[in-house]
Order: sequence, then structure tokens, then C-alpha cells
Amino acid sequence: MGNTEQRIGLWMVGAGGAVGSAAALGVAALSKDRIEKTGLVTALPVFADLDLPGAGRIVVGGHEVRATTLLESVQSLHSESAVIPPEVIASCTPELKRMQRDVAPGIMLRGEKLVRAGAGVQSRSLPTAAAAVKRISNDLRTFRRNHRLAHVVVINVSSTEPPASSQAAPPEYAKLARFMQRSGADALPVSSLYALGAFEADCSYLNFTPSTGMRLPAIEQFARQRDVLFMGRDGKTGETLLKSALAPMFATRHLIVRSWVGHNVLGNRDGLALSDPEVKRSKLDTKQIILEPILGYRPDTRTSIEYVPSLADWKTAWDLVDFEGFLGAKMRLQFTWTGSDSLLAAPLVIDLARLTAFEYSRGNRGRMDHLACFFKDPDGAAEHRYYQQWQHLLEHAHRPATTRA
Amino acid sequence: MGNTEQRIGLWMVGAGGAVGSAAALGVAALSKDRIEKTGLVTALPVFADLDLPGAGRIVVGGHEVRATTLLESVQSLHSESAVIPPEVIASCTPELKRMQRDVAPGIMLRGEKLVRAGAGVQSRSLPTAAAAVKRISNDLRTFRRNHRLAHVVVINVSSTEPPASSQAAPPEYAKLARFMQRSGADALPVSSLYALGAFEADCSYLNFTPSTGMRLPAIEQFARQRDVLFMGRDGKTGETLLKSALAPMFATRHLIVRSWVGHNVLGNRDGLALSDPEVKRSKLDTKQIILEPILGYRPDTRTSIEYVPSLADWKTAWDLVDFEGFLGAKMRLQFTWTGSDSLLAAPLVIDLARLTAFEYSRGNRGRMDHLACFFKDPDGAAEHRYYQQWQHLLEHAHRPATTRA
Amino acid sequence: MGNTEQRIGLWMVGAGGAVGSAAALGVAALSKDRIEKTGLVTALPVFADLDLPGAGRIVVGGHEVRATTLLESVQSLHSESAVIPPEVIASCTPELKRMQRDVAPGIMLRGEKLVRAGAGVQSRSLPTAAAAVKRISNDLRTFRRNHRLAHVVVINVSSTEPPASSQAAPPEYAKLARFMQRSGADALPVSSLYALGAFEADCSYLNFTPSTGMRLPAIEQFARQRDVLFMGRDGKTGETLLKSALAPMFATRHLIVRSWVGHNVLGNRDGLALSDPEVKRSKLDTKQIILEPILGYRPDTRTSIEYVPSLADWKTAWDLVDFEGFLGAKMRLQFTWTGSDSLLAAPLVIDLARLTAFEYSRGNRGRMDHLACFFKDPDGAAEHRYYQQWQHLLEHAHRPATTRA
Amino acid sequence: MGNTEQRIGLWMVGAGGAVGSAAALGVAALSKDRIEKTGLVTALPVFADLDLPGAGRIVVGGHEVRATTLLESVQSLHSESAVIPPEVIASCTPELKRMQRDVAPGIMLRGEKLVRAGAGVQSRSLPTAAAAVKRISNDLRTFRRNHRLAHVVVINVSSTEPPASSQAAPPEYAKLARFMQRSGADALPVSSLYALGAFEADCSYLNFTPSTGMRLPAIEQFARQRDVLFMGRDGKTGETLLKSALAPMFATRHLIVRSWVGHNVLGNRDGLALSDPEVKRSKLDTKQIILEPILGYRPDTRTSIEYVPSLADWKTAWDLVDFEGFLGAKMRLQFTWTGSDSLLAAPLVIDLARLTAFEYSRGNRGRMDHLACFFKDPDGAAEHRYYQQWQHLLEHAHRPATTRA
Repeated sequence: MGNTEQRIGLWMVGAGGAVGSAAALGVAALSKDRIEKTGLVTALPVFADLDLPGAGRIVVGGHEVRATTLLESVQSLHSESAVIPPEVIASCTPELKRMQRDVAPGIMLRGEKLVRAGAGVQSRSLPTAAAAVKRISNDLRTFRRNHRLAHVVVINVSSTEPPASSQAAPPEYAKLARFMQRSGADALPVSSLYALGAFEADCSYLNFTPSTGMRLPAIEQFARQRDVLFMGRDGKTGETLLKSALAPMFATRHLIVRSWVGHNVLGNRDGLALSDPEVKRSKLDTKQIILEPILGYRPDTRTSIEYVPSLADWKTAWDLVDFEGFLGAKMRLQFTWTGSDSLLAAPLVIDLARLTAFEYSRGNRGRMDHLACFFKDPDGAAEHRYYQQWQHLLEHAHRPATTRA
Repeated sequence: MGNTEQRIGLWMVGAGGAVGSAAALGVAALSKDRIEKTGLVTALPVFADLDLPGAGRIVVGGHEVRATTLLESVQSLHSESAVIPPEVIASCTPELKRMQRDVAPGIMLRGEKLVRAGAGVQSRSLPTAAAAVKRISNDLRTFRRNHRLAHVVVINVSSTEPPASSQAAPPEYAKLARFMQRSGADALPVSSLYALGAFEADCSYLNFTPSTGMRLPAIEQFARQRDVLFMGRDGKTGETLLKSALAPMFATRHLIVRSWVGHNVLGNRDGLALSDPEVKRSKLDTKQIILEPILGYRPDTRTSIEYVPSLADWKTAWDLVDFEGFLGAKMRLQFTWTGSDSLLAAPLVIDLARLTAFEYSRGNRGRMDHLACFFKDPDGAAEHRYYQQWQHLLEHAHRPATTRA
Repeated sequence: MGNTEQRIGLWMVGAGGAVGSAAALGVAALSKDRIEKTGLVTALPVFADLDLPGAGRIVVGGHEVRATTLLESVQSLHSESAVIPPEVIASCTPELKRMQRDVAPGIMLRGEKLVRAGAGVQSRSLPTAAAAVKRISNDLRTFRRNHRLAHVVVINVSSTEPPASSQAAPPEYAKLARFMQRSGADALPVSSLYALGAFEADCSYLNFTPSTGMRLPAIEQFARQRDVLFMGRDGKTGETLLKSALAPMFATRHLIVRSWVGHNVLGNRDGLALSDPEVKRSKLDTKQIILEPILGYRPDTRTSIEYVPSLADWKTAWDLVDFEGFLGAKMRLQFTWTGSDSLLAAPLVIDLARLTAFEYSRGNRGRMDHLACFFKDPDGAAEHRYYQQWQHLLEHAHRPATTRA
Repeated sequence: MGNTEQRIGLWMVGAGGAVGSAAALGVAALSKDRIEKTGLVTALPVFADLDLPGAGRIVVGGHEVRATTLLESVQSLHSESAVIPPEVIASCTPELKRMQRDVAPGIMLRGEKLVRAGAGVQSRSLPTAAAAVKRISNDLRTFRRNHRLAHVVVINVSSTEPPASSQAAPPEYAKLARFMQRSGADALPVSSLYALGAFEADCSYLNFTPSTGMRLPAIEQFARQRDVLFMGRDGKTGETLLKSALAPMFATRHLIVRSWVGHNVLGNRDGLALSDPEVKRSKLDTKQIILEPILGYRPDTRTSIEYVPSLADWKTAWDLVDFEGFLGAKMRLQFTWTGSDSLLAAPLVIDLARLTAFEYSRGNRGRMDHLACFFKDPDGAAEHRYYQQWQHLLEHAHRPATTRA
């Protein structure tokens, strides 16, 4: 008892973006029972026996650098992409407005190209990286205290950063801490500052983007010192999900993949961020890695992304798989995937919050390898085959809690 | 030792068709090391530790109703469909001619529409079903004796039969045996006569087609009496393979499949058989069954097949999956699969022969549930998810032999 | 002047269906300047110099057998297919209600399978075919008189009929008239009764469906006697439009089309009608005819249609064109077309009304061959190439009026 | 008469590439009547009344910088891409060897990245641009004299050059001539040197590539001074051909194209050249220009190209057209085009040679605007609609010769 009454926090970095605001709306609509649970993995019967927190127990907050509100953001998803029924937005408007009070200004670095269209900016000038981390952890502590939360799960759903050139960052946390005292806030990728702030405040941190986050030795070291839960990176929602479901089929049939070409077109804010060639490279890196470990050899892979505003949130991926069969026969699989990018991601963010809170409540700590099925480039994972990842999730979730992961 | 010297028989019903002749060529080319093992599942490293018979130990024979030879059949695959390198055909011509001596006339029923294009027919007039079964088992015994084979695996790779209306057949073998004494050869589907003949001669029987085969209670009863190995039905080579790999992805992501439409076009002899609406129904039945058990509900499925001669062996399937995600968003996956139908099937036939001979040699008998991953409509199987089937195969194959399955 | 003040009638057979109600809404929204003119061919600059009637001069009425209203019908297009902005519906609700007063009960034959889902039926029992025609012409005269219309254009946008077996109908109008006096209303296809009723009332008649309409010698004879305007049949809105634009490319490049396979899936009322195999045949006939005249030879064409309710108005067509190039190279074009069937058709209905009223006003009469670009199976047309048809329209429309076509 | 006995020359710059060697093989095979005329536009019945030179009257020669032969090149098309029947190659081997004697070393600039895979290079060191032009014209004169040719048509089928930065080149020919006397051979794009050489030798010049060729004012001025025939640029063989056939459909139906995304993957030498980002830009420029003139507005177009070696000559283009219809409905057309790039181009090269020789023989001179249908970016053409271009060709070809074009 007691436990089922406890409330947990879902704090999203980039809360005002399409994924963040759709997840916020989802929490509100689920707690009022206004929508089906379609798309929510943790609502599958196979998880029914676990004591996962219901939507009514999830309090939403976050950081956001743009001067847009959760409500405006879901409204523009409706008007631009014709997704999200307006009656759901209408019925949850009070909740979205209430959540908005827990959206704090985000950290913005000097010279960062802000992904926005005319929107104002809300950010804070911070003298050092250490000050930025402190500010973030203070925001999280305030949120937890104000809402009397049992635990806060921080999930990064902001736009993709350019690839980090963080060679300056020392590999040990003690040195990193000193380094951050004397360096400007831009000495580390913003996503890493958020990870540090979360760990500092004893929160869990999950990275749903391809950004660096805690993928620096010193930061992972710090996470282990703080004994928190963490996992990343880059939510697996579309083309890569399909790849990880299909590539094992070729492998187990001994069909040789000669080339696998993927072309992605999308028109949302994520697409806009990716239209910066630097940023695009971050994304392509996580999209390309999965075939070799699954197939056992390296086929010729080409993945490209184009920003096409007219498509709005409707990401379309075309994949061409050129493969060879018995007696050298050249065969082909093509697919096109047309999905609302934000609505594929949003329920997974809620799933991750629920599963992480569940781990926390049963005393597990450390890297959550069992969440690999949610990520394109799972931390520390050698396993990229989707169904093996899924099986791992099922087994872990139903396994009695260990004291330490 | 000893065992590794033993030879086994691969007897194909419909040996002269595209699948049969390509499998025969494959056995020859593999044993002479003329081709890569691409497409051959049992050549994957994960099976390397098992004592599976090499191609050099496989002797090929079969039944065929058309007056075409193995050599002519692979030649027409080359000339019509531009598959199979001519130099492979040339180098294996002596072997194909030698195998041809073990191709016996098939059983043909009165009034059966023969799938052929001007080819003559070789079949035998048989007074009763029992006589037909006797004839088949005699052919198999002769083959085994002549080549001193440790075991013969019979695989049905002939054209699809029309759906059987076998209500006349009694459900117990004892009664069926008497019934067959007094009934014409057409009292049972031909595929069932072959199954009975195989069991009579202590051979294994696998049904790679959607035809009835041993899917009659009395015949399965007989198989168990004879203590043989058996499994079916309908080889899973293309669209259904993809379905069984992809549908679990929708299920585990809680994405609701509203409709799944599949349209198949092909121009080979199998397509010609399927242009008969009766026969087409047999095929569509096995193509439709897998989604409901995987998804847990019944989406709107429509599968259609068109015979388009110009495509020859290049079967193309277009699938449209209309699914719903979070907040009711309607999304779509489309794929087109362009594969050489016969060259997808042929190596699996060799795989099945090897895996069955292996089961036989280690003393297992009965229905080979672990071969489900090779079939669209696996006998007795509740499991249609491809990767679960694959896992089952791996585990079973590496498990110490049981005395009885 | 004067002419520009005159109002014309657009009378739709099947006004309450998706196409009819969307066209009605379109007329209302255009006349209030609430929508863009996208999709409206006659709004292109190239027609700006012609005195075509504006939407504000078009009065809408029609026949409908189902007890559904125009408003309900456009609302269900919105709720089921997510097309038509709700604010456009809201702003035009008064007009749709006013138009509803001019929707009269349709003619329904004994035993006709009504395409409906629980909707009530409004039809009239009529003793003879002649009485049905009389009733129709009376409805049209009443409409014209009530609204003081300069001319009424009747357009059939109802569901496809089964193929007519009208061998009973005599080939001369005089005999047909006597035949209709003594025959039940089902002696002729309903679409033909409407054509006769329209001609009787001196209205123009256009057949936007694959149904028979005036494709009977006696009816065309009658049309010429009455000196009216007429044209058909089967609106060219999607897959066939693409075919007629693409096939000439293959022809002029001397690329040989070996096969052209088309598979159409749709979930609207038209799809439901087409799920009746008899009706489907009518549709497939008009879809198949165009390739041979364009290419000069008969490729292997296969066109199929499936009714898939979940797709609602979003018809999807997949086409596979297998063609041969220089030195015998086998190449392929595939396309998928995903369009809202009703919203592709509706503006063309308005275009046809405008272009027909224009012909009428400048004194032309007879078969409107220049409208061939709007039809899958244009009356009397040897020309199926889309751009030639389009050129013909442009030239004719800008040519000084002839006294007789 | 007399005329029909005259022979003409087809001189290809880049003769040893895939297009050049396939065209050479085509000329040989056509003259021996070994192949169908599929893919050859000028073999259509509509041109039968014109006195176009038959293949037997065409003598082939060319420049080539790589040390590969015509025979090796067609053989590798067969072995790598499974196109071109080996028996055709076998039967034409003597002709290909004879043609090889007329393949001269090409011009190669200092520092040019040669498109090759280990192949040796044959080129000549030339002190000035003027010397290079002289050398080219001498090669052409020698070819014409040796074979007693009535006329020589030079067609550039070599790999795409990087975009030229030819600002140094003066805009008047007189100045250009002096400039070339004192500048190195790399002062002008190589394709321009070939154009100048052709004009100098009174040959026609057609540019089948996106390279500069005669697209410099001074060179076009020179062409007019020399009173020769010329036209360019970039052969329209696949995706752009489809665009120019399809875009007018959207325009004439008043459907608004919001975005048109094209992704091209290919694995031949042209693809290899295009894998250089600089070169790719040349190609993309000519691929992008056609939509705006056809549609009358500028949709969002994105065209990308990837070099994927496993695809060899089988270029695949995926296009996604996102368009808007009536009442704002968002619709989509997708297509994939899978064609053997070289075998789509080769017959058009022969067509251009025949049509140019025909123009020459009937006394026409100047820019051949009527050949626009063969080019992605036709010189001086405002017309990009494919069927209008085709109509122009037909009309011009059947029009009595003018003294000057």
C-alpha cells in the first residue's frame, strides 16, 4: 500500500516541443480516461500484473527554451498535421495550463542556433557549466518538493544537438567537476548538463534524443556514484524500429543484404533541426549502427534525411533493401513508412516514465539495459534485434527485483 | 563415424517443377562446391556444431506428372526469369541427368486439370486409392534400396491442389484403409496419397504446399502408428514470412492494425495453378491465418493473387498496413517484396531434408513442431511469430535427443 | 449581359452520396468564398476569359434514395475520413439545409440491393419505366421553374450499377418508348431512366459513373432528337487518370509494356457497392480499356478492387508496370496513389456543370466530345491519351461557338 | 537517292562508358538485325515516312580517357547488371572490335579526378585549350575522311563534370579564341572543348550530360558562325522523364503540389562520378528545374542521389508527391522507377544521331529545339512538358525543311 498512492514526476527537457506536449496531453487524457491506450506499450496485458504508476499518478513538468506553451504546441500539431482530435485538446486544456506552471526556462548556450519560427526565447544567462547544472538540479528539487513526488524521471525530448566535440571534458568526474567550475556553460553539450543536473538532484535520466547526454565517461561515472537510474539513447519509433524487426529475418534466412538504403523526409521541428548538416550527422550516426551487429557483416548502408515542411509531422521513410538469395538471385524489399513522428514517440515517453518509476520503487539502480527496445542506439547494448530486446524487457520486468543492477 | 558416411534420400513430389528442379540443382552444385550457401538456413554458423548431412550425402529423386526433365526445368528458369547462372547449370548437367533416372511418373487423377504448357504427361492409371498408395511406397522403397539410403525424406513441392472436399474420408485409419480399397484414386487428395505412401514405406513426409497432405485425422493417426517424422504445411518464403516478422512489432508496440491488404502477382507455374479460383482459395486460406493469433484480434485482412505471365518467377507482393497509434493517429506501412519464388523455396527444401534426416538419425519421431518457422500454416502450431519459431528451432536442434517427440 | 445574371441548376442523381454532398458543399463554400479553388479545373487561368457561371449562379438539387441528408453526408466524410475542415461545414450548414429541400426521393427498382448501412430508404413505387421517366422529368421541370433556371445540368454521381443486361431494350427510340409503356421500371437500368428523364425535360445529362446511362442506341437517338447536351462515362479521378498520363510516355519512348497490374483498395460507399462482384465487373471494364488504344497493342492488364472499410474515403491504388527496353532489359515502374476519392471527384462535377452550361449558353448541342478528359470511358472517343484530351478541351472551349456540334 | 547510300558518323565522347558502349553495340546489333527495336524512338511507325539513316549506315567512333574497350564495357554491363544478352554480345564482337579502332584517346585535364576503378588512362598532354580543340577537330576530320562520311554527329555521353566556374571565359568568340591560345587546357570545361572541336570540324554536337558543353555565350556564338547543328543538355531517361509526364497532370487538374521529393540510388560509373558532391550538384541542378515552369509556382522540391555500388546499372528512383486537392485534402502519389540507366539512354543516343543527320541532310542548321523531349534541361526551351515536347518533335520532323532554323 502507500506505494500505489505515491505520485511520480515526469520532467521533460524540451517539454514544449511536439513530443513533449503530446506526451503531456497524453498523461492528461489518460488520467481522465478520454482516450484509448493505443500506442502505449505498458498498457499491454502482459504488463497488467506489474505495479506501474497510472497516468493519474504522473505529474508533468519540464524545461523549455522557446516561448511556446504546451497548449499552443498541441494545437499546432492539430492544425499543421491533422493529428490529435480537437475534442481531446479541449477537454484537457485545464490540465495543460496547470502543467504549464511547471515548465521552467531552459538552458541555452551562447551562439546556439535556436530551433524556432519567430517564437521568443526563454533562457537564462549562466556564468559556468557548474552554475547551469546547479540551476537544473534546483528546478528539479523544487518540482519534487512542490508536488511531494516519490521520484522524478527526467526525459530529454528536445531537438537534436550537433555532434559534440567534447574532447576537452576530462574522463573522470572529479576533474570534470573542477573543469565545469571554470568553464562556460557551453563547455559541455546541453544534454549533458541536464543529465548532470538530474543526477545531482537524485532523479533518473533518460535520453530520448541522439544528443550526447550521459555518453561521456565522467558523467556515467557520476551516475553510478549517485546511484541513480539512467538509459539512452534516441527513441526507436519508425524506420529503425522496422529495421531492427526485419534485419534478423534476413539474417536467419541466410539472405545476404547487399545494400540497405533509407531516405527519410519530415517537416516538423525535429526535421528543421536536422536540416542543419551538423545536426543531421548526429541522427544519421544512430540510424546506421544497427545492421552490422544484427547481420554479422557490414552491408552498404545509406541513410539520408530531408526537411520538407509541407509534410509537417508526417514523417515518411522509404527503404530499399537489395539482397541476394540462393544461386545468386538478386531480390528486393522496399517499404514506405508514413507515421506521425510525435505520436509514435509520445506514448513511449510515458512508458519510459512508468517503467523507470517502477524500477526505482523496487529498488533497482544503474543502467536500465532492459529498456533497449525503446532506443535506436541503446547504451552499452550489443543487442539490436528488436524481438530479443523485447524479450529482455519482459523477462526483466517480471523478474523479482535485484538489489543492484 | 559411420553416420557421417550414410547417405539420405530427398524425394520430391513434383520434382520437375521450378522449386524441385532448383533444389536438385542446388544439391548438385553444393556437393561440387560450385555455389555459395546463401539462402541455406542450415549453413548458418549457429548450426555448424550439428551433424547435418552435407549435400554430398543427399541423393535426389521424385515423382513428376509432366514429361519435363530437371534440366529443362532449370533451363527455363534461366531463360524466362533470368535467374540461375548458366555456368552453374552447365557444370551440373551430368548430375541432373543422373538424378533424372530417379524421377518416376506421378499419380494423376481422372479429370485433374494438369498444370502444364503443352508438356506431355506421365502418370499411371490406378484402380483404387490403395493401389496408388502401394505404388508410391514401392517407388520409395526401390529408391532407398537402389541407393542404399539410411533414410528417405519425402517433400511435397508440387502445384497447389484445389481445396479438398474429403468429408467422405473416415476419421480413423483402419476405416480409411478399407475405404481406400474400394474407392478410386480420387477419393483422397493426391497430396494425401503421397503422405500415406511415404509413411507406408517408413519415410518422413513434409508438405511444402497448401494442399491437404496429412491434414486428415486418419492420416495423422497412421503417421503416429508408423512412428515416422512429419510436418507441414505451405513453405513460408515471402509475403507471409514478412508478415510473421512484422506483425509482432505492431503487437508489442500496441499499435492497432486496422487492415492489412496483400496483393500478390506472379507468373510461374504456381501462379498458373492459382489462376484457378478453386486452387487460389487453398492458398489464400493459409496466407490469411497468421495475423489473428499474433495480434490477439482480427484485423480486416484481404489477400489476393493474380497470375501475370510476364513476371515469370519474379513474384511481387504489395502490402498495405493501415494502423492506428496514440491519440487515434492513422498511420501506414507499405511494402513491396520482389523475389524469385523458386529460389526462395529451393534452399529451404534442402534445409528441411537435412534437419529431418538429423532428427531421424538421433532417434526422434513424430510431428516436428520445431520446424514451424518454415511453414505458413504449421501443423498443430499456435505460434506464428517468426522469431519465436526461429528460437524454437534453435533450442530444439541443440537439445539432446529425446527418445520420443 | 443578362446572361451573366442567369442562374443554372446542377441536379445530381445520388446527391446525398459522398461525391454529391461534397460537390454541394463546394458550390456553397465557393459562392461564399470560403475555400480555395484548388481541384477546380475551370478555375485555372486558361479558362478565365470564358463566361463560365460562377458558383454563386449554381443552384443545387438532386435525387437520392437513401434517407440521409447532405449535411450528414459531409459530416461523415469528416468524421470517418478526416477530410473537409469542420469550419467549412459549419459555415455552409444553412446552404446545405436549403439545398436539401431540392433533394427528391430517387427511383428504386424492385429487388435492387440498396447500398446503405441502416439508412432508411426514400423511393417511389412506379408501375412502368415510362412512369419513372415521367416522374424524373417532372422533378426536373419543377426544380427549373421554382428557381427560374436558365438551364439544368443533370449529373449522375450515384453508386455503380451492376452490368446491364439490356438486350430486351429495342434499338430505336420509338419502339423503346412503347416498350417502356408496358414494362416495369426495371426494364432498363436506373441510370438510363434518369438520362431519359433529363432529355425529356430538355436538360443536359452527364454520366459520372460506369453505369449504362445513355449508352443504348435508342437513348442516344432520343438525345439527338431532343437536341440536348450529353456526355459520359465514369469520372476519371485517380488510377485511370494516371494511366492515361503515363501510358503515352511508354508509347512515345517505344518501351514495351508487358504487363500493367493495378490493385485498388477503398472503404467508402462506392467501395461497398463494388464489393458486389457483379458491380465490380462494371467498374473494372471501364478501368481496363484505355491501354490498348494508347499503346497500339494489348499488354497483360489486371485490375482488381477490394473493399476495405478502415480506409474510408482514402482510396489507394498500387500499380506495377513491367516493361521492356532496349536489348530486352526488363524494367519496372510502381506507383501508389493515395487520394480522397470523393474530393477528387467533387470539383470535377462542378467543372462539368459549368462547362456544360457554357456550351448550352453559346448554342452548342449534342455529344460533348471535348469533355473526354473527365471520363475513364469517354462516349464515342477513340482518344484516351490524357494530354490530347486536355488539348481538345482547351481548343474547343476557346473556339467560337458552332451552331451544331 | 544517293542520299540513302551515304553513311554518317556517330562520334561519342566517352564512347567506352556504359551508355557509349551500349549504343555502339546497339548500332551493330540493329544493323545485323539481331535485336528488336524496342526503346528506339525513331523506330516508331510515326517516323517511318522519314528518310532517317538506318543503323547499317551509321559508323561509330569516339573519344575515351579510360583504357577500357567497348567489348569489355558491354561485358561488364552483362556481368555486373545482368543486362544485355550474352549472345548479342557474342554475335557483335567483331563489329565492336572494328569500332574500337576509331576510339581515340580523350582529353584529360591536369588534376581531373578520373572516374575509374584501376583502369589505365589514355589521354594526351596538350599545352593550351586551343591545342586541345585543334586535336579534337583533327580526330573528327580523320574519322570523317577515313570512312567517307557525309556528316559526323558528336554526342557527349561521358561522366558528369563538376559545375564549371568559367567566369574567366570571355563572352565573345573572338576573345575566347585568343584566350584559349594562351590558357591551359583546363581554362574551359572539357565538354566545352569537345563542343568547340566539333564545330571547328563542321560536325553537329549534342550534349547528353549535364556538363557545360556549349552553354557559354561565346561557344554558342561560334556554333552559329560555323552554321552547325547543336542541342543539349542532359538526356531525359528516367525520373525527370516521369516528372515531365506527370507534373502537367497536376497542373491541368489544379491540384497543388506542395512538395515533390525524389531520391535516386544507382551503382554505375555515373553514380560513382556523382558521389563527388561537386559533381552531384551539376546533376541535381538539371533535375530540379522542370517543375516551376510546368506548374506555374515553385513547390518544395528536394532531389537527392546516392551511389550504391550493389545496384550497378539498376537505378532506382523513389518520388513522393505531396499534393492538395479540393477542400484542402492532402493527398499523395509515390512512385519507384527501376530501370537500367544505360539501356534507357543508349537507344536515345542512336535516335539523336539519326534525327540530327536527317536535319543536316535536309539543310537545316542551328539549335535543334525540336529535340527538347530528349533532354532534362533543353537549351533555350521554355517548354518542359513532355507531351508538348513530343508534339513539337513530330510536327517539326514532318514539316518541310526550312532553309534556316
